[in-house]
Amino acid sequence: MPTDSRESIIRKGAEIVHAKGFRGSGLQEILHASGIPKGSFYFYFKSKEDFGLAIVDYYSAFIRDMAERHLGEATVSPLDRLERFMESYTDMFERMGHRCGCPVGNLIQEMSDLSEPFREKLKAIYTTMHDYIAELLREARRRKDIPAAIDPDGMAWFILDGWEGAIMHMKLAKSSEPLDNFRKHLFGLVLKKTGRAR
Amino acid sequence: MPTDSRESIIRKGAEIVHAKGFRGSGLQEILHASGIPKGSFYFYFKSKEDFGLAIVDYYSAFIRDMAERHLGEATVSPLDRLERFMESYTDMFERMGHRCGCPVGNLIQEMSDLSEPFREKLKAIYTTMHDYIAELLREARRRKDIPAAIDPDGMAWFILDGWEGAIMHMKLAKSSEPLDNFRKHLFGLVLKKTGRAR
Repeated sequence: MPTDSRESIIRKGAEIVHAKGFRGSGLQEILHASGIPKGSFYFYFKSKEDFGLAIVDYYSAFIRDMAERHLGEATVSPLDRLERFMESYTDMFERMGHRCGCPVGNLIQEMSDLSEPFREKLKAIYTTMHDYIAELLREARRRKDIPAAIDPDGMAWFILDGWEGAIMHMKLAKSSEPLDNFRKHLFGLVLKKTGRAR
Repeated sequence: MPTDSRESIIRKGAEIVHAKGFRGSGLQEILHASGIPKGSFYFYFKSKEDFGLAIVDYYSAFIRDMAERHLGEATVSPLDRLERFMESYTDMFERMGHRCGCPVGNLIQEMSDLSEPFREKLKAIYTTMHDYIAELLREARRRKDIPAAIDPDGMAWFILDGWEGAIMHMKLAKSSEPLDNFRKHLFGLVLKKTGRAR
């Protein structure tokens, strides 16, 4: 059996779960799509939940990668980095036809009440997402790019939760408008940013 | 067959769907919980989807009722009414152990990509929720209670999406903190409200 079988079934499962939710994704469909027999599945994973947790890890790695790529550029101001990051997500969602939305947000909504191991893992990645934003805001505050009254930690939760809500609304509206409206209000009214990132 | 059978199965279904999602709620379980035989179900509803749409109507009626009760009091300032409305939801979620969350938000997340009739109906109720907030903001602007730069329509989407995101986060955190953080930032930093509703 090729060593990348585990990776390949996770990748295919992540795609299907992103589109249909965890409970809406049949194991049979995932096995069929990844061309892997059932026996091999249980060689890699103890249960469907165990598999689901590996998919959350896969999403985490993707988000970390996106964040490191966009949020680390020291030559760009922290607020511009945050705005461009949100714009690149907006472009990605546009290419996806405003379907699927945020894989982490979907699972938070679906699984928080149903599985403690899911909830713990989702909480860890959601906290990581928060910490990226809080770090940018701390940097912006040191540079006096945002009002001094802003608490980076609380504001980072306000931003992350609002962004997740806007993504949910985007799925409903099948349009980028909720994401554009969120960015406009966040950067214009809340953070008082001057000038546009693009 | 009692005339309230249709109502009683919708009420029971609404409760189960709120806790487990639409696809996670088995018809058998709902029939069993409401004590209604399968034949009667198909007397009232063409399909499970048809039943789901009736449940969305039920949620809509509940939300309209909450909104009329809290948002109409002319003796209270519009921002105080909005803040109290959010506080009463916070209390309700606290009593529910921070489980389930917003039934409309859950179904938007779960069903927007999967069923056009669901999406259309959810869009209508989400727009109604927006319109209640926009109307309060228009009233607040007339009274000069909020900065003149605020556009009531765009801000109402910003508020509604942010609030839905905060409810999602509450389910994850199993705590009211995300809701408290949202209200604090919204009323303090964004709307510049002075004084607390309670």
